[in-house]
Amino acid sequence: MLNKSTGYNDDTIIAIATPAGSGAISVIRLSGPNSLLFCLKHFHPVNKNMTVENIESHKLYFGNFVSDETIIDEVLISYFKGPSSYTSEDVIEISCHGSEFIQQRIIEILLADGARIAEPGEFTLRAFFNGRMDLSQAEAVADLIASQSASAHSMAMKQMRGGISDKINYLRSKLIDFASLIELELDFSEEDVEFADREQFFNLISDLKTELSSLISSFSLGNVMKQGIPVAIIGKPNVGKSTLLNALLNEEKAIVSHIPGTTRDAIEDTFIIEGYKFRFIDTAGLRESDDFVENIGIERTYEKIKQATIVLYVCDIGNISNSKVKEVLEEFKQYIQDETKHFIFVGNKIDQLGKLPSHIKEILELDTVFVSAKRKENIQLLTDALVNTVKKFNISNDVIVSNSRHYQALVNANEAIEQVEEGFNNDITTDLIAIDIRQALHELGTITGEITTDDLLGNIFGKFCIGK
Amino acid sequence: MLNKSTGYNDDTIIAIATPAGSGAISVIRLSGPNSLLFCLKHFHPVNKNMTVENIESHKLYFGNFVSDETIIDEVLISYFKGPSSYTSEDVIEISCHGSEFIQQRIIEILLADGARIAEPGEFTLRAFFNGRMDLSQAEAVADLIASQSASAHSMAMKQMRGGISDKINYLRSKLIDFASLIELELDFSEEDVEFADREQFFNLISDLKTELSSLISSFSLGNVMKQGIPVAIIGKPNVGKSTLLNALLNEEKAIVSHIPGTTRDAIEDTFIIEGYKFRFIDTAGLRESDDFVENIGIERTYEKIKQATIVLYVCDIGNISNSKVKEVLEEFKQYIQDETKHFIFVGNKIDQLGKLPSHIKEILELDTVFVSAKRKENIQLLTDALVNTVKKFNISNDVIVSNSRHYQALVNANEAIEQVEEGFNNDITTDLIAIDIRQALHELGTITGEITTDDLLGNIFGKFCIGK
Repeated sequence: MLNKSTGYNDDTIIAIATPAGSGAISVIRLSGPNSLLFCLKHFHPVNKNMTVENIESHKLYFGNFVSDETIIDEVLISYFKGPSSYTSEDVIEISCHGSEFIQQRIIEILLADGARIAEPGEFTLRAFFNGRMDLSQAEAVADLIASQSASAHSMAMKQMRGGISDKINYLRSKLIDFASLIELELDFSEEDVEFADREQFFNLISDLKTELSSLISSFSLGNVMKQGIPVAIIGKPNVGKSTLLNALLNEEKAIVSHIPGTTRDAIEDTFIIEGYKFRFIDTAGLRESDDFVENIGIERTYEKIKQATIVLYVCDIGNISNSKVKEVLEEFKQYIQDETKHFIFVGNKIDQLGKLPSHIKEILELDTVFVSAKRKENIQLLTDALVNTVKKFNISNDVIVSNSRHYQALVNANEAIEQVEEGFNNDITTDLIAIDIRQALHELGTITGEITTDDLLGNIFGKFCIGK
Repeated sequence: MLNKSTGYNDDTIIAIATPAGSGAISVIRLSGPNSLLFCLKHFHPVNKNMTVENIESHKLYFGNFVSDETIIDEVLISYFKGPSSYTSEDVIEISCHGSEFIQQRIIEILLADGARIAEPGEFTLRAFFNGRMDLSQAEAVADLIASQSASAHSMAMKQMRGGISDKINYLRSKLIDFASLIELELDFSEEDVEFADREQFFNLISDLKTELSSLISSFSLGNVMKQGIPVAIIGKPNVGKSTLLNALLNEEKAIVSHIPGTTRDAIEDTFIIEGYKFRFIDTAGLRESDDFVENIGIERTYEKIKQATIVLYVCDIGNISNSKVKEVLEEFKQYIQDETKHFIFVGNKIDQLGKLPSHIKEILELDTVFVSAKRKENIQLLTDALVNTVKKFNISNDVIVSNSRHYQALVNANEAIEQVEEGFNNDITTDLIAIDIRQALHELGTITGEITTDDLLGNIFGKFCIGK
């Protein structure tokens, strides 16, 4: 993909930009200096007055795409004259009938003219090289396309529009000011002067650490938002855990199925509600067992809780004795000592509810939802409870880190800053401190792409879909 | 889909026009009087001067698609002011990031405004109702999208551009002139006059029959071109039939796999070469048997030949004795008495070729190809032979019927014309002859859609993909 010396090729690339397969229309995208030339060689416009000289940017032209006097298709072409295009280069989009044969023929014809099949992400890579977006924004484009829930979409959109870049650039500029004074001291090191006020430095370091920590801690939220918030369903055998899971999953199917034409891959055991994606942990056992033979041990229960952010503790409230209530409550209270998790007590089988156990009051004081999974009663109350739990998460931070590469760079930057602090505290020489400052700058620079390597770019853009 | 009284709804319809799934970009299409209104309610153009009053047709506008102050996506919109659009109505195409979530959100938002999800083929149905294309052209759009080979593509393109319509309209206008004179005779029937010259009529009927027969007979070719030309591989056990099949299919894979980004569904045992699609008959047995246990009876062989257009007769030429050659030749000559099929004699295992059998000359006089399926030698010669065989088919007829609905209508029209002829010959009264003429006109009219019913339209457009 990359010309190792310049990091950038300026040949003309081509790819199908729309999803693979057949449909009403497909779009083939060309970018590079010969986009217009290659396309117009085969495009016979209905409007005979259109020529390579007078074609206008951001206009649509209808005509035939022709090769060897054979009409391949009736197409619409859009012309985006660089730099007013996605890549900043001349871009042509050919909108043809969505037949795989036609898509393939048009690409073959343009390849024969000298275009080259684009690598995954190469259009966006060119946009990055041409300064249309920084690296974290480019990464957000891939996240945006992959986003399946409103929360993941919103994070990607914020990042694409520069949210995290602004924050990182701000931190980096602070650190650069700091670094320049330190470097100045190094230049005059033999004269033993201190240009940089140590008091101010400690304040700055403290500020940086606060900001970095806040970004770092936002990652656990950002990551679960992106991947799905992990939910564990636990409880004694026969309390109706698998029935509850099915009731929850059915609820979702009803929500998403009213829009024809949008096929959804069946991702088992995830669930999107009010824009939040929930992911059920280890439900394979639940599904197979159908509650009867299932009997998971206490160890496996703790293992599930460990992986979860939210835990649904299911209890059969239908025919529960007073002694049983006591036992259940003790178990539940033991679990909720883990304050890093959010627990919801689910009283199931309200359809079989007999005499109210005298300990019911104690249950009511918990974060409780009463449902009948079997009859699908009150399932909405449970989904509301799930959504409200997520809303309680600390999302005051307007910039949420959801990319693990960014997370790692922030952790590394934070470590370097801690080294700087420690260095000052231990009166380490300025030249050693300068190394750590440079390291922190480097780490922050990799996020927005101020600092890149071919490997890094290959790794990031290789994950893109073709045509973007 | 259809308003039964008018046959046409003028509400605003919406659908995803690009293939389902995620990709770099997707296109959402709106058609109807409120397309622009619905879209601009949510579209915040980068160019603030763009308004509903000054938006220009066939131009692209970049901006944000916004709902409840949330940016759903950065989009490009294309505006096609009716009647200069696919449907002749106002059409908007929204080009967004190819995320399923974003596609779904944009559709949900526009549905909430009052747009309606388009039925399959409804955009094309509107184009038909608004006179943008006739019925056979509309059907060709679906064929074009489904076409997988150059020959199927070329037939669909000809039909979409009016090839068959021109022909049918020509035949129909001839018949209408004829009919009007006959109807005139009916009006003056009591006076016993003949406005229509009977001699001319017989000539016209003869012409019509010739034209109709030519179109009808083109269907068997048109249909195999569209579905794939059926090829049978026959021969004695252990001559290498399954190895030959694999060699042929591998050949194709090499041809199509050099274009990344175009996924092809793995359609087993079809094969496209030089734009012709070949379909191997009943290869399941071949594939399973791997030639060793396979031993199909003479009856099943004839059954396969019956289904085929081209038959590959495979013979092990490697170690063949003189007596065996004689036997094989006798068998082969028996098969080729069926003149409706095209036979190719495939001499396999040339890699094991020993002493040339003295009867080889007789073999060489046949339509023969010598290959080594195992070593993939001369496979290209065999594919050339297949292509040349297809080219020998009678394709002098420039209009080829590939649609079975058209075929049936043509057969019915031809029968009606024969009734007319018989009527004249038997001095049947003019009013009865007029019925048959009207029937022939009706049948031809259904092809181009001069005559339609809601059922017919529902049947045709229901097979379309959503968004077209």
